[in-house]
Amino acid sequence: MAFKSISAAEAASLVKHGYNIGLSGFTPAGTAKAVTSEIAKIAEAEHAKGNPFQIGIFTGASTGDSCDGILSRVKAIRYRAPYTTNPDFRKAVNNGEIAYNDIHLSQMAQEVRYGFMGKVNVAIIEACEVTPDGKIYLTAAGGIAPTVCRLADQIIVELNSAHSKNMMGMHDVYEPLDPPYRREIPIYKPSDRIGLPYIQVDPKKIVGIVETNWPDEARSFAAADPITDKIGQNVADFLAADMKRGIIPSTFLPLQSGVGNIANAVLGALGRDQTIPAFEMYTEVIQNSVIGLIREGRVKFGSACSLTVTNDCLQGIYDDMDFFRDKLILRPSEISNSPEVVRRLGIISINTAIEADIYGNVNSTHIGGTKMMNGIGGSGDFTRNAYISIFTCPSVAKEGKISSIVPMVSHLDHSEHSVNIVITEQGVADLRGKSPKERAQAIIENCAHPDYKQILWDYLKLAGNKSQTPHAIQAALGMHAELAKSGDMKNVNWAEYER
Amino acid sequence: MAFKSISAAEAASLVKHGYNIGLSGFTPAGTAKAVTSEIAKIAEAEHAKGNPFQIGIFTGASTGDSCDGILSRVKAIRYRAPYTTNPDFRKAVNNGEIAYNDIHLSQMAQEVRYGFMGKVNVAIIEACEVTPDGKIYLTAAGGIAPTVCRLADQIIVELNSAHSKNMMGMHDVYEPLDPPYRREIPIYKPSDRIGLPYIQVDPKKIVGIVETNWPDEARSFAAADPITDKIGQNVADFLAADMKRGIIPSTFLPLQSGVGNIANAVLGALGRDQTIPAFEMYTEVIQNSVIGLIREGRVKFGSACSLTVTNDCLQGIYDDMDFFRDKLILRPSEISNSPEVVRRLGIISINTAIEADIYGNVNSTHIGGTKMMNGIGGSGDFTRNAYISIFTCPSVAKEGKISSIVPMVSHLDHSEHSVNIVITEQGVADLRGKSPKERAQAIIENCAHPDYKQILWDYLKLAGNKSQTPHAIQAALGMHAELAKSGDMKNVNWAEYER
Repeated sequence: MAFKSISAAEAASLVKHGYNIGLSGFTPAGTAKAVTSEIAKIAEAEHAKGNPFQIGIFTGASTGDSCDGILSRVKAIRYRAPYTTNPDFRKAVNNGEIAYNDIHLSQMAQEVRYGFMGKVNVAIIEACEVTPDGKIYLTAAGGIAPTVCRLADQIIVELNSAHSKNMMGMHDVYEPLDPPYRREIPIYKPSDRIGLPYIQVDPKKIVGIVETNWPDEARSFAAADPITDKIGQNVADFLAADMKRGIIPSTFLPLQSGVGNIANAVLGALGRDQTIPAFEMYTEVIQNSVIGLIREGRVKFGSACSLTVTNDCLQGIYDDMDFFRDKLILRPSEISNSPEVVRRLGIISINTAIEADIYGNVNSTHIGGTKMMNGIGGSGDFTRNAYISIFTCPSVAKEGKISSIVPMVSHLDHSEHSVNIVITEQGVADLRGKSPKERAQAIIENCAHPDYKQILWDYLKLAGNKSQTPHAIQAALGMHAELAKSGDMKNVNWAEYER
Repeated sequence: MAFKSISAAEAASLVKHGYNIGLSGFTPAGTAKAVTSEIAKIAEAEHAKGNPFQIGIFTGASTGDSCDGILSRVKAIRYRAPYTTNPDFRKAVNNGEIAYNDIHLSQMAQEVRYGFMGKVNVAIIEACEVTPDGKIYLTAAGGIAPTVCRLADQIIVELNSAHSKNMMGMHDVYEPLDPPYRREIPIYKPSDRIGLPYIQVDPKKIVGIVETNWPDEARSFAAADPITDKIGQNVADFLAADMKRGIIPSTFLPLQSGVGNIANAVLGALGRDQTIPAFEMYTEVIQNSVIGLIREGRVKFGSACSLTVTNDCLQGIYDDMDFFRDKLILRPSEISNSPEVVRRLGIISINTAIEADIYGNVNSTHIGGTKMMNGIGGSGDFTRNAYISIFTCPSVAKEGKISSIVPMVSHLDHSEHSVNIVITEQGVADLRGKSPKERAQAIIENCAHPDYKQILWDYLKLAGNKSQTPHAIQAALGMHAELAKSGDMKNVNWAEYER
């Protein structure tokens, strides 16, 4: 069938107050952009008339300003899951205006299918091509697009000419059956293809095609600096040493790496370390640095959910597709982050902590235990099932007024049971096989900033030795309370907590 | 080859100071008992001579007094992983005498194989039969026996005639390859057999057979009471309702249930609810109550790691093996608790919390955030990958002086990202698809004891509304601090924390 060409405004008018929309895209590559911007206008108009207009948003991970930003500003979001990076959305969440459900990315699609979050009314999918028989070819990300296409009553396709049709063929679309009918996810190495290069939908559900030319909204990250370079070098040295002593196989293992400037620094250092063989990535997000390493032959293959690269870098891939076609694959987040596949492949996972405590618990979502930063993303999917799970962070923040190493994390996303290694610019704490007390020694000694070492040793003294996990419970969050009070964790006075 | 029959004392003399021993058994079914008791005597003698004598213990889960108890009392344990229930061991750990590494049970075998915990010197394996070509038939548990048999330099077999040879054939021994060679674990329904009924070892590694007649040391649990009965009923009613509205398929899904009297009450209630069809278990531990439900036809099949039943009940199974042979299977803990299989099968997991907080974070290991109770066991393996993850607990403990619902858990084992449902005798909080603030409303309203509801609402008021996860960080552990001070959480005075 031939699809109707409609305007973004016409498409947006299909979305009613109370609807849940399902979006393509991931961090924020490949997100639909034009229709959400028009939904914002409808919301504004309805609100001006005194009518309620709020929707739920289900997507792969962060969208750009054209969705989370603009819709937050006009107060059009009632509910949203999962990960997000938009500052206006963040502000609205922390103001209590939006019900934000922060969920492991591998679970998003299945929890929508299981019915835990309500109905998907309309799917809005960015495509580089769509065929009359209902084959939708995605752009720069997998996300939860296959699931929302299947569940939604209506599908709107944003056919975006800012993405090259060269993207056709790069996707591996696979949606598992739900229990009790689910089978194995048959990926045994990062390059295994298990699905189709397109999403097959019932063409009757496609209510219209919105033609756009709207570049992706991926950010570029801060350049490396001496601190991130040192962290990167510590990671590379640690992995090289583990390979040397036979803990990591000599062929190395597939790598997952988080998003941001620390991740870039880590990949840079791994790329430079010639004792580490060329390796594969089985990861969530491919950033510019990975594309560079593929061009240099240091990364042999990249499996991910999204190409979260600058638009220049993306254009470079489209232009060189003959080179990249057998070196890159994009999958739905349910597959890129699958605990089953992560544990099977033996991924080395490297993610960023906001803070870690002396026992190896990690906070990766909440500032001061209360304010949402971005969400957990896929860090839990990888950490929990990794062969070796590593968390990195600078040892201090805010000109040294905040220590990233604290007695007890103010919010906990990754527990002591899941975290193997903590790395700062100060050094490496190897927590594997250690009891909590042994972990505390390693973390304070190797990872804490010199300004905070004695403060942390003094906390341990206050906590005593008479337990598995020593804490002076009334003082455990004392450094956070001090930060709230005086603006500097260094001012904490443990004597106040003695009884 | 014919194996040498040796005494337990001779076998124990092979274990030297500094060795790590690997044991069969799980919670504490099927644990070797005779040799460890003799190791304790050696330790005592060496200590009397002023010599050091301490070992590391790697096992499936808790052992009985003959291992953890007796070896703790003579201070012969340097290091131990994972789960344990022995009171003397617990005391020693909380006194700081033992390095205890509390680890997810599905990860124990692989972390030993990966080399994270050091070498396995001697494996001590309880068997009901061993053949000259090195086939070891296990008794009442799978545990990590296949892994420690393969890795150890020497194997001691405790041939225990207290277990019937009828156990032969009940085990499904399967050890996955390590990355990068690992394949799928090909279990698609609880009854799928994927391995061998015995552990095949190099017979040359078997240094001797210790013949014993030593019954298992499984405890029986407290009888159901009105509180546990109400919790059980709440679980059954919740699951029946979820099935009715189509969230759970009409064929139901396989169940995992933790250990203890609440688990027994839950299973009792599920057994009685005839709107729930006869179901299968894919679980860690089979207790007496499951055997009863199999006899009644309410449980169709049980896959587990151990038969942690009373000795009478175990004898009943051995006597009725023609009935039970196609209704029970025992697997290594790496398989019974496999995240891959748990997520694939869509397990409904039901575990017990020590405390839960208003946002759905769960503490299942530490009393007051510091003292180890038993360890995390397999609760994390199941919770994190469940179709629906449920935590149960009575709403109060210690004659009401402790609320199980608190503002912030004092130790966190299962995060908000993994916990779907909290159930107390007061009611059910369904957290699926909810933001933290919506979860807090549901948990306080439905699960907290009436004596603590207003206290928790008042905490929320103190915490304000200006964040994703409201906390008054200086007061977040205030109920725990109050318990330590006055012995009653009800005395907490939030006014003290206002600024």
